[in-house]
Amino acid sequence: MERHFDDELKSLKELIIRMSSLAEEMIEKSIIALKDRRQDCITVVFEKEKIINTLQIEVDTIAMKLIALHQPAAGDLRFLVSAIKINADLERIGDLAVNICQRTQDLLKEPPLKPLIDIPRMAAISQLMVKDAIDSFINRNADLAREVCKRDDTVDELNNQMFRELLTYMIQDSKNISRALDLILVARHLERIADHATNIGEDVFYMVKGKDIRHHAEDNAV
Amino acid sequence: MERHFDDELKSLKELIIRMSSLAEEMIEKSIIALKDRRQDCITVVFEKEKIINTLQIEVDTIAMKLIALHQPAAGDLRFLVSAIKINADLERIGDLAVNICQRTQDLLKEPPLKPLIDIPRMAAISQLMVKDAIDSFINRNADLAREVCKRDDTVDELNNQMFRELLTYMIQDSKNISRALDLILVARHLERIADHATNIGEDVFYMVKGKDIRHHAEDNAV
Repeated sequence: MERHFDDELKSLKELIIRMSSLAEEMIEKSIIALKDRRQDCITVVFEKEKIINTLQIEVDTIAMKLIALHQPAAGDLRFLVSAIKINADLERIGDLAVNICQRTQDLLKEPPLKPLIDIPRMAAISQLMVKDAIDSFINRNADLAREVCKRDDTVDELNNQMFRELLTYMIQDSKNISRALDLILVARHLERIADHATNIGEDVFYMVKGKDIRHHAEDNAV
Repeated sequence: MERHFDDELKSLKELIIRMSSLAEEMIEKSIIALKDRRQDCITVVFEKEKIINTLQIEVDTIAMKLIALHQPAAGDLRFLVSAIKINADLERIGDLAVNICQRTQDLLKEPPLKPLIDIPRMAAISQLMVKDAIDSFINRNADLAREVCKRDDTVDELNNQMFRELLTYMIQDSKNISRALDLILVARHLERIADHATNIGEDVFYMVKGKDIRHHAEDNAV
């Protein structure tokens, strides 16, 4: 019985790592599509989304089965419930990469508005946040989880900076409006990806420490 | 023991209903703030957010405790895991109402761009979706859950329609850009609220039927 539980837990972790890799790759490819104007990368993202959707259902099913059949101890139970929550975050990260590609499809119909510097930077940070958040989960590493949450501020700042810059493009020339708007939405999607990574980090922190850093509950408690 | 479990389950349900009422009220007040230019409603939304954040932690704690201590049967277990997921959706709905208020604070600094018809309509539909999604959860009503999910298309359509309309305002006159952009973002926040209600509906359907309607898994399975 115990052996079986450990095996199933191991394959659950592997599935989540696979989902995370897919999500990271989708972020990367969606930004390559935008930056290097590569339609083929958009196709890849759309294909990966189908896989991530299937994996999400698989992860939920396995985690629920493990809770129902094995009555796991507190630590494992927290891990399994976190897996179900994190699973939803990863799937939505995939959706957001798809949303970036939808904006990119619009953008590729016209010449580039401006060289893209901050968006690839935001994407790189967000992508690493996802990776590290999942690493912190698999290795039950609360320090890494907390560190991921802190990086969210940088992404928020970049998003605000992009917003202001693109607003000036819009005001300068009405021909820029549609493209600037698409880029504003891309930046916003990236910011939401970072939010989901932050949610994962908060869940992991709670899972490991049994303490909540959402809404600074920890500050109030100390 | 059983008695205690049922009591705790009942108070968990009551907490979730309270969270949902708060979320619904926040949506409503954020749109009144926007439509009737009422700063006092913005203050209310910001205050309610603090309450919803505290409740979120409480719901998670109770649900985890019930799973850990009572080893509930399959139906109750699914209910409790769904509660944890739905709890996260409700909290994010509250966040989105706060985001609407942040945009509204900007908008109230200038005269209205246009009479608002579609945004209050989107808000009313989204708000009812949240209410019905939570009703479907509490009463384990799969039909209502599925029906909530279907309404998401209407909100998406209204969002797209708003987007196109506001784009024309921006192109017409650069003085409109900033306000039109704020309204586009408000519509987008509402669309995401409807997405969260849809997520809740999908979770409830899975909880009751044991079948997944996310990503049309059901269509593939039948």
